Amino acid sequence: MLESGPLDPESESSLAAIFQVAGEPLKLLRFPIPTLDAHEALVRIECCTVCGSDLHTISGKRKEPTPSILGHEILGVVERIGSPPLCDVSGNSLEVGDRVTWSTCISCGECDRCLSGLPQKCFSIAKYGHDIAEGKYALSGGLAEFILLRKGSAIVKVDPALPAEVICPVNCATATVTAAYRVGGIIEGRRVLIFGAGMLGLTAAAFAKFNAAAHVTVCDTNAERLQLSERFGADSTIEWCDDAQEFSQRASACSVDGEFDLILELSGSSKAVEAACRLGAIGASVVLVGSVMKSPTVSLDPESIVRRWLCISGVHNYAPEDLLTAIQFLSDSHSRFPFSELVEKIFSLTDVNQAIEFAQNAKPVRIAIRPGFHGNTDNS
Amino acid sequence: MLESGPLDPESESSLAAIFQVAGEPLKLLRFPIPTLDAHEALVRIECCTVCGSDLHTISGKRKEPTPSILGHEILGVVERIGSPPLCDVSGNSLEVGDRVTWSTCISCGECDRCLSGLPQKCFSIAKYGHDIAEGKYALSGGLAEFILLRKGSAIVKVDPALPAEVICPVNCATATVTAAYRVGGIIEGRRVLIFGAGMLGLTAAAFAKFNAAAHVTVCDTNAERLQLSERFGADSTIEWCDDAQEFSQRASACSVDGEFDLILELSGSSKAVEAACRLGAIGASVVLVGSVMKSPTVSLDPESIVRRWLCISGVHNYAPEDLLTAIQFLSDSHSRFPFSELVEKIFSLTDVNQAIEFAQNAKPVRIAIRPGFHGNTDNS
Repeated sequence: MLESGPLDPESESSLAAIFQVAGEPLKLLRFPIPTLDAHEALVRIECCTVCGSDLHTISGKRKEPTPSILGHEILGVVERIGSPPLCDVSGNSLEVGDRVTWSTCISCGECDRCLSGLPQKCFSIAKYGHDIAEGKYALSGGLAEFILLRKGSAIVKVDPALPAEVICPVNCATATVTAAYRVGGIIEGRRVLIFGAGMLGLTAAAFAKFNAAAHVTVCDTNAERLQLSERFGADSTIEWCDDAQEFSQRASACSVDGEFDLILELSGSSKAVEAACRLGAIGASVVLVGSVMKSPTVSLDPESIVRRWLCISGVHNYAPEDLLTAIQFLSDSHSRFPFSELVEKIFSLTDVNQAIEFAQNAKPVRIAIRPGFHGNTDNS
Repeated sequence: MLESGPLDPESESSLAAIFQVAGEPLKLLRFPIPTLDAHEALVRIECCTVCGSDLHTISGKRKEPTPSILGHEILGVVERIGSPPLCDVSGNSLEVGDRVTWSTCISCGECDRCLSGLPQKCFSIAKYGHDIAEGKYALSGGLAEFILLRKGSAIVKVDPALPAEVICPVNCATATVTAAYRVGGIIEGRRVLIFGAGMLGLTAAAFAKFNAAAHVTVCDTNAERLQLSERFGADSTIEWCDDAQEFSQRASACSVDGEFDLILELSGSSKAVEAACRLGAIGASVVLVGSVMKSPTVSLDPESIVRRWLCISGVHNYAPEDLLTAIQFLSDSHSRFPFSELVEKIFSLTDVNQAIEFAQNAKPVRIAIRPGFHGNTDNS
């Protein structure tokens, strides 16, 4: 590591915000730009949105190896390419100047899991924004000026006309949602129920509406978020309550014929997992996504699962095809749903600690860090 | 209903064994042969195997409407056909003399469930061997000389060369197993674990082996059944134990790399459901089939379901395509696996109460009732 210094993206080093100890401010340090090997690329970061999991790491709720450069919802422009060049998911070589995003997971492409369609669970997986910042591959997170893309990244070129704030969360929130829907099956004509109205839930509501769901219901504890979900396609909303019977009544009153065919659990609450499994109609799919931290066990009735032909699936990370679906979806739908408003404030990289503080206190859906941005501003 | 009388299949009436009160013997009564309407057929029953659910009904463990003619695993020969005739699942008219079996469920083919690929959950479903024996459609079960097939039955012609004892359980046990595998996905190369070594479990072991599973493990409480499962393709067996940790160790010691990719729960034990969900590898499918009676709730860890991309599905009844797969499987594999031996004894219809008593006491995998059969004998 080099010493912290003034912002200078043109130098042979990159400024980056280092996470070392939970609860302490990130430290701005400079890292040398490494020499590129085959199938690698250096990307100048245009924008990085801060995901809930980044905030959990910073606050200590979630443990990650340190020191690290957090941030994995990243959009950038190819600055340099190795030889032979790195290719995008369609097999086309990257060119200097291409605007790109990429999968958070780096997969080997050769192990049994990769070969069986689960590259997101590759035996030698690495993840941008989650690795130790040391050695050649130190520049592996989004809270920096530059990032080094490695072989095994699913890279997708992004239309320069798409607003950065719209597309930036695509490789985490949006692709996770499209993975959940891939697993959940048919959307058209089905009654969809979504638990959680954060970035994933709002995206999930919009995706369901865009894909002709018969009815979209969103559930959350937060009335303001529920109101927002109506602008993202929710036909009805339910305020969560802990009483199972009371909640079931509220939910049934919301839907067509009181039932749900496709249920996404994005909140991570075990009580919501139980409700999701209880509320599925015959033939329903329940996709669990939110439970990524240690949670109380859930209690389910096996006879009811059997008799309803219920399908309960877990989704964690996503495959490259989900990222493609996600980008296509945002391209097609961002004029219909106010995705760009979800990034409530934009900060420069040098103001990263202010940005984190704002995110922790005001709890916006997203904030963005733009290394080339000066000052900080509301995104309006 | 007519009075009980001597066996006379040529008369305009059919002898049938009536279930009225749990714990009491079945009563042999004669029912008139009804006039056939359009899309109906009268079938002379060749063989009916007695399913575990029949025994549960007779003992009172399971409640069904009464009076009824039990028996739903049925093979027969078309005796008369209505006009226009009833067709088989391929759309071909039935002919007098065709040897047939058919789905236990009768579906309307027009409701939302039928149209969405769940005819087995049709809104106006009826089930052979489970309906009240009254009116025109009294002859609706297998413990009789004749049965009336109705519109909405998925009928399949059966090769006359196939042994009755092999094919008879196809429309309950075998088709439920093939439905479970349809839901569970790829078999080839996967490590399969099966809970329960009864008719379904033995069939499931054979089906997995026949379809090139990498490894087949069968679990049961009964050492004799486990031994039998080895003749049905099990590569390894585990005796069940209630201690979760001990059981997990036994299971892991059995499989390749200690993991399972495809798990079928056929026993109905809630503890086995929990073990099934615990033992799935990343990307595994767990198919729950056995839990068809009120059972204790199961306790599951949602984080582990999410992180493993686990898929837990319920299967109850089956669709016509599963019956076709099941018949094809038995046709192709009955020389490789000793299916015919699973029917341990054959009884005549007039000896039905002796048959039930034998089934309840000796607990064979299956017994068969053959109306045209005189005396009773071991099937050897």
